[in-house]
Amino acid sequence: MTDTEQQRETTAGAPGQGRYVEPGQEFTRDTNYIEDRITRDARDGWPVEAGRYRLVAARACPWANRTVIVRRLLGLESAISLGLPGPTHDERSWTFDLDPGGVDPVLGIERLQEAFFARFPDYPRGITVPAIVDVPTGRVVTNDYPQITLDFSTEWTDLHRDGAPDLYPERFRDEIDDVAEKIFHDVNNGVYKAGFAGSQKAYERAYDALFARLDWLEERLATQRFLVGDTITEADIRLFTTLARFDAVYHGHFKCNRSKLSEMPVLWAYARDLFQTPGFGDTIDFAQIKAHYYVVHSDINPTGIIPKGPDPRGWLTPHAREELGGRPFGDGTPPPPPPEGERVPRLA
Amino acid sequence: MTDTEQQRETTAGAPGQGRYVEPGQEFTRDTNYIEDRITRDARDGWPVEAGRYRLVAARACPWANRTVIVRRLLGLESAISLGLPGPTHDERSWTFDLDPGGVDPVLGIERLQEAFFARFPDYPRGITVPAIVDVPTGRVVTNDYPQITLDFSTEWTDLHRDGAPDLYPERFRDEIDDVAEKIFHDVNNGVYKAGFAGSQKAYERAYDALFARLDWLEERLATQRFLVGDTITEADIRLFTTLARFDAVYHGHFKCNRSKLSEMPVLWAYARDLFQTPGFGDTIDFAQIKAHYYVVHSDINPTGIIPKGPDPRGWLTPHAREELGGRPFGDGTPPPPPPEGERVPRLA
Repeated sequence: MTDTEQQRETTAGAPGQGRYVEPGQEFTRDTNYIEDRITRDARDGWPVEAGRYRLVAARACPWANRTVIVRRLLGLESAISLGLPGPTHDERSWTFDLDPGGVDPVLGIERLQEAFFARFPDYPRGITVPAIVDVPTGRVVTNDYPQITLDFSTEWTDLHRDGAPDLYPERFRDEIDDVAEKIFHDVNNGVYKAGFAGSQKAYERAYDALFARLDWLEERLATQRFLVGDTITEADIRLFTTLARFDAVYHGHFKCNRSKLSEMPVLWAYARDLFQTPGFGDTIDFAQIKAHYYVVHSDINPTGIIPKGPDPRGWLTPHAREELGGRPFGDGTPPPPPPEGERVPRLA
Repeated sequence: MTDTEQQRETTAGAPGQGRYVEPGQEFTRDTNYIEDRITRDARDGWPVEAGRYRLVAARACPWANRTVIVRRLLGLESAISLGLPGPTHDERSWTFDLDPGGVDPVLGIERLQEAFFARFPDYPRGITVPAIVDVPTGRVVTNDYPQITLDFSTEWTDLHRDGAPDLYPERFRDEIDDVAEKIFHDVNNGVYKAGFAGSQKAYERAYDALFARLDWLEERLATQRFLVGDTITEADIRLFTTLARFDAVYHGHFKCNRSKLSEMPVLWAYARDLFQTPGFGDTIDFAQIKAHYYVVHSDINPTGIIPKGPDPRGWLTPHAREELGGRPFGDGTPPPPPPEGERVPRLA
């Protein structure tokens, strides 16, 4: 989605001046998305089909980042193409300003908004990434990000690469859902609740819940390499995309500053372990992440100055998590390097 | 002074909406102060005299903090009384909002501004702390902060306590001045240049100079306990008041985020050593410091939310700097605890 609130997006103020903080208010995420699913049985009219859909997913956005990681791990790159809006956007939504001529080369549009309007001419909600667009019609199919990754895992199986891991194993689904739910409220969305709080009280409530949950994770992960079972699952991916942004933006910009991630030894080692695993760190672009938050949220950072720190090279330091055992890809294998054209800048 | 720029203070925008960042501009500190001095020979008409003057010095302000520390170390508490404006202020200057009835009990004024106007009815510059006020006339004498502390050390000697240290020893004055000058430009004022930068380029220039200087200090202090000689001097005091605010405000609010102070092992141990020395940590009020920066600079932090972190209790952890030798107070002794009524809240 946008890392904005959908609601906030649609109630944006003056042009170029999105409003994310409502004075006196708690931040409430609009969780209504276009819920169509792409499935093997095409129950919503959208069949799984190689080459038909385009995933639009800005590097900056943690919710979009999940889909990029899952697509990488499962080897869906050739089945589902990837459109990458730039890190900043105005109140009229994400734009393809990084592409030649400012136009997505496959969809032929300048703004993601166009794909939403092609389907719903008066679409009233936020224009969010990730979104999947039906290439033949140019219409958005879904922006329901939690369902998108689960469907990649469970509906797109015929198109998975050889050695694709099982990121949503049947026997662990209840536990994954439960852990992911806690992480969503307190961590993934918790950082936004802190950053977009319209009152000191709402901020402190979010801050307390966030760090209580991080302490809980610190303890849980002290003795097990991954969140559920002994392999990487959907739960790890959902936590990772928030942790990857923690010190770069949430610590300062969203005032989540009890400590940096790098000061929580277990979580920091866990996050580095994933970062150094093919399919994770190779989707992270810190420059785009920082540009997005510090430029787009002009009501939190009116100067638009983007902090130069912290040094991201710490992500590449040894983590020693192998000592806990675990089989990152279970019976599968790591993905090959990202395709040409989908590479992020290297650290260091 | 105010931690604002003087200039910025006087060009403040709408009421209650001080402007600290001028788009496109580098931050330039107005270094013109009221330069009268209080001396033994009364050359400017202001003789050293016990009970005559009141030091007005907000806990929040690093420049004022220097004077509070030097007054403590030298035992000038009974000779020079202390007025303490609250941490926040509006464009009309510091107020005595913490005092009963919002009035300074000695000067009988609500705003520091009144003491400036009593002397110069159309005083055009910033109303800054620290300021020394002549109690009988209610007129400000000086707000020239770098001179105030030196004069405490060199002109007020007859009123020093027994065991007062020599904070500005003759034989080290050139070196102290030289080190202090470097620290002023790159560190004391450097954090403001980063935080109030009106362009990305000006910010990055300040950030680079700041961390280059901190690296230089990290190296210098690796083998010596204090900045100059083997005792605490004026140079240490000037550095300390910026370091004390680093993780609490400069790291996030001013985007000085290459690393936290607590991630620079030598400087962090050096800062803790001083913090734990009588006269230093007992002048620091983290709640006031955070409230000041995050509330007053509404153009950097329009929401006015004050970060809850970081946990300040790390300041009390062992530092092992004694191993480097050094004699903190030289031939003198540590000061006794602060007088009743001048105590800050305890950590932990």
